[in-house]
Order: sequence, then C-alpha cells, then structure tokens
Amino acid sequence: MTRILTDTPSLISYSAVGGRSEGEGPLGDYFDSINDDEYFGKDTYEQAESELQKEAVNIALEKAALKEKDIDIIIGGDLLNQCVATSFAHRDRAVSMLGIYSACSTFTEGLILSGIMTSEGYAKRAMNVTSSHYYSAERQYRMPIEYGGQRAPTTQRTVTASGAVICESSDKAPYLRGFTLGKIIDMGVDDAANMGAAMAPAAYDTINSFLKESGKGLDDFDNIITGDLGSIGSDILYKLFDMDGIDIRSKHLDCGKLIYDTERQDVHSGGSGCGCAASVCCGYILPKIQSGELQNVIIAATGALMSPTVSFQGESIPSISHLVWISHQRG
Amino acid sequence: MTRILTDTPSLISYSAVGGRSEGEGPLGDYFDSINDDEYFGKDTYEQAESELQKEAVNIALEKAALKEKDIDIIIGGDLLNQCVATSFAHRDRAVSMLGIYSACSTFTEGLILSGIMTSEGYAKRAMNVTSSHYYSAERQYRMPIEYGGQRAPTTQRTVTASGAVICESSDKAPYLRGFTLGKIIDMGVDDAANMGAAMAPAAYDTINSFLKESGKGLDDFDNIITGDLGSIGSDILYKLFDMDGIDIRSKHLDCGKLIYDTERQDVHSGGSGCGCAASVCCGYILPKIQSGELQNVIIAATGALMSPTVSFQGESIPSISHLVWISHQRG
Repeated sequence: MTRILTDTPSLISYSAVGGRSEGEGPLGDYFDSINDDEYFGKDTYEQAESELQKEAVNIALEKAALKEKDIDIIIGGDLLNQCVATSFAHRDRAVSMLGIYSACSTFTEGLILSGIMTSEGYAKRAMNVTSSHYYSAERQYRMPIEYGGQRAPTTQRTVTASGAVICESSDKAPYLRGFTLGKIIDMGVDDAANMGAAMAPAAYDTINSFLKESGKGLDDFDNIITGDLGSIGSDILYKLFDMDGIDIRSKHLDCGKLIYDTERQDVHSGGSGCGCAASVCCGYILPKIQSGELQNVIIAATGALMSPTVSFQGESIPSISHLVWISHQRG
Repeated sequence: MTRILTDTPSLISYSAVGGRSEGEGPLGDYFDSINDDEYFGKDTYEQAESELQKEAVNIALEKAALKEKDIDIIIGGDLLNQCVATSFAHRDRAVSMLGIYSACSTFTEGLILSGIMTSEGYAKRAMNVTSSHYYSAERQYRMPIEYGGQRAPTTQRTVTASGAVICESSDKAPYLRGFTLGKIIDMGVDDAANMGAAMAPAAYDTINSFLKESGKGLDDFDNIITGDLGSIGSDILYKLFDMDGIDIRSKHLDCGKLIYDTERQDVHSGGSGCGCAASVCCGYILPKIQSGELQNVIIAATGALMSPTVSFQGESIPSISHLVWISHQRG
C-alpha cells in the first residue's frame, strides 16, 4: 500500500544513541551519545534498553528545544517480549502512547504512522522511537552472552542502539513524502541464524511496490537504503533485482552493513535490531538529507517476524518491509 | 489524546470466533463460530491462535461479501512473543500488514488506526483483528496447562477468541466517532496475578480524559464498556470514580465479566486477553449499536504492559487503555 503524504510533514528533530560496539564502528562519531556501559547505569539489560529509548527521546526533545508536554503522542516498539523496553521507558511520561511491533522494520512503521498523524492533524507533534540491545536480545532469542555460544557466520549482531524522530507539519527539511506499508513475505527460509536471507525478498517486494505504485524510478533517488539485511541479505537483494535486469548496487546502502566494520568487528554478517535502522538513519542519513547532500532517499527497514517458540516448532520466517520516502525538498 | 474522526467511518462488518469455554459462557450464542477443539485442527496452540484470526478475518469478509483483495490493510496484534499469532495468520495474504501491540487494549488501538486510515483516505477498507488463546498464553506467561498449577482467585482467564472488524468510509451503522489514545499509567501494582487491579487506573484515566477533552458527559452514553478489568478491576474502577462523586455502576459493562459466568465457570475474576474485548464487542456490542438498541457507547479496552521477564525482576505493571466512541448515528 503506497501513499503520498498530503501535507508533507517535517522530521524536525532526531537523535541516535548507541553502545560501545556501535561507538567503535564506522559511524561512531555520528551518534549523539555513546555509552560504554552495557547496563546504561541500570541493574538489568531490559532496564538498560529502556534507558536507551529515554535518552534518545530526551535528546530529540532537547535538540528541538521542546518539552515532553509539546509531544502529543509517542509511537514506539522494540524486540523484547511484549515490547517492555518501550512501555517501561515511557511509563512516567504524561504522553499518549501507541505501541507497534514489526520486528526490525518497526522504525519505518512508526515513521509512517507519525507522518499520517501529523499530516492529517491528529497530532501536532509525534515522537517515533525504537530500540534494541545486544544483551537483552541475545538472552531472549538465543543464549545469555555469559554462555559463550558460538554463532553461525550468517548471523547478525543485534545492535545496542535507539533512534528517535519528532515529526511535525513544518517548513524544515528533511520531509517525509510518502510510504509503502509492506506485505508479509515468507519464502520458506527457516534458518533463524540467517535472517538476512529471510528478509531480502520482503525488501525486494516493498521496494518494487513503491516504485510501481508511486510511478518513480531508481534514478529519482540518491540512495536505496535497507534496514538490516547485512552482507548476505544484501547480496540476495542484488540477485533478486538482477533477475529483473536492474542493478541497484551503486545506489544501495544497508544500515546493518554501515553500522559495523564487518572486517574489524566480530559481527559476522552485520547489524540488526529495531535500533539498527533507527540509529543509522537518525545519526547518519537524516543529517545528510537535511543538509541537501542527499536529495531523495527511500528507506526500507526489514523485519523477521518469528519468535523462538515458532522457530523451535520448525516454522519458516515470515518477513516484512515498510518503506519511507524522505526528501530534502517539500515537493 | 482525544480526537473526533472527521469522516466518521463505518464498521461495515465484524465477526467473533471463540473456543469451547467461550461457547459455554453467557455470550456463547453471540459468536459467529465456536470451535470445541482447542487446537483448531492444527498441531500447536500457536498455530491454533493464528487459525482463530484467519477464521475471524474470513467471516468478516464473507459477511460483507468482500474478498481479501478488497482490503487495503490488516492492522493486528496479539499477546504472543513477537506477535506471531498475527504474523503467521496473515503471511499468505497479499495485503499490507501493520503490526501493533498494546496488550489487551490492542483491539481498540487497532480500531483507532483503522478509523484514521479510512477517515483520511489512506485506505478504502481496513481490517482490524486481534486474538488470544488460553493455552498459548498460559504456557508463555505462566505454566503449561498440563502442569496443573493452582491459580490465585484474583487471576483472569485468557480467552480463546478473536474479533475482526472492517472499517470503511460508508453510510452504515455502527459508526466510529472518536477516540482517546491513552497514556501509560503505573500505580505500582506488581502482582501479575491481579492485572485487573493494575489496569483499572489506566481505564479511569482514559475515560476521564475522553469525557474532559470531548466535552461529553456520562449521560451521553448508554454504556461505558471496559476491556477486561474483571470483577476485581471493575470494583476498583467504581471506587476511583466514587472518589469524584460519580457512580458509573449502572452504565458500566466489562467484557471480562460478560464473556464468562464467573459463578458457574472456573475463571476466577473473569476473562482477559487481546481476544476478550475484541470478541465481546464484535459478537455482542456492535450488533446492538447497529440495530439502534444502543445509541452511543464508549469502549475502553485495557492492557497490562508487562512480560514474565520484568515480573521476575520485581517490576510493577505499567498499564494502558485506549478508548473508542461508537455510535448508531453518524452525528
């Protein structure tokens, strides 16, 4: 489902917060804040992840000289069971809360809802925030880090990061121009240690839907950015487009590949998690669109919609990708 | 955040599907379909819950003589980790998917988003569906049923049920008139066996916000319906309103109390789950609004936003309530 936003809301402020590994990565200097303590000063990894979200929201507010009361709604989600990182992060805020879940594509789903809410006047300002945390995710999805389990070369590292964006109908780049809400795609991949492979067909389907339904071409965009396909998923995406005679390699960036140095850092196929696309876009991509260095990009975050329970039951991995078109010009 | 929907969309079709205990309850005859097999013909309880959602969606489509291709977007969620009941239910559908999570208030959150999407022309028709399943929920949140664990008298039984609603800008009652997106309220209740007590203050806050921000009074509504406070949570809600000198007892209904006969059925304080408010509203309430027997109701579904992990860590239970105003008249 592709739509153009009628009132073209602005992304008036945004922030990226990360952990130690993210700070040591190639984008380390682009984060607003890096915390070397994986606990973020708290007692548990779950509390640490909530702290990540709190900090991202607070920095985004500060950068826009806004207070919590200036926000009508927080739209957020994360990877933890029952999205507790999000709920606990904002339980003391007197702001309406809209909980969403779309695995690692939650960030763009939230941007889409922020855009609709502000474009149509339901909210003056909407805050979109997502997060993930390596330690809370590992012990929930796989094994506690302390166990020292060996990871397959196809795996991706869940990033410890959060990104927050404030959306408002305003006259300031970057602008949220349109979106595609993706369909669930399940090509039968059942290897939970190779989520890039499971998600690549969803990214392909959503990017194609957007181009077809918006009447745009690849030439209209400086970059085609995916959420967290990693090295393996990105290669599959190239091959899917190759079959249509389209080479997207020169325009393509993947947040999961950008956030780490896969040669130097022990991250296998790259980064993933609700905080991956969020922090890379908020720290690295949106500033370039704001400055005009990039004029038009599409960001197709990708999510693998499985749980450990259904993986144990031998199920394949349904995947989804939600896309946003962000522009330096209002259009 | 309270808003009135500008285009007053219609809830053109809706369905309620339940399991055996729900069929044996006082509302048994109001369900469109009851399945006595807790597996719904599948191999696992998770698959059974997906089947519940599929059936609810299919019945809602049939009742409106619509096909899957006539729906622009499915908005859905459930209680399972990573919302797998929802993702797996719709992985074979060629329809855009918006995943949401707000615990047992997911149903009204979805109605609100369906209303905005259709009212503002982003979707011609939106399908909102939520579910819960007693057996999949028990083993995830507490213990597998086979363990035979004793339950506290304050607990509620997660209903095995699903409800689906199709929203469209049309000229047919019932109409979705407005909504309040709730704030997270955490009064420090940390007993995961007494979620009614944790959620009652959220319902109180949201109902009060709606009345204050919409300028409406209790006299404007035939019923004030809460999602699943159960007997104990409902009593707390009465006492909270009593402190304001307002007696809501004669107008109040609770889906968690309606769905079971708490005297005859072994359900302790009543029903709960994403399927509770969904199936009771779709099976029992919406038909009465459609016929005009009820003219105006507000439905404040309630959600307890904890997970077993954070409960084990001694955390209190943040809760939320999202409210919809549904009317026989377009206004």
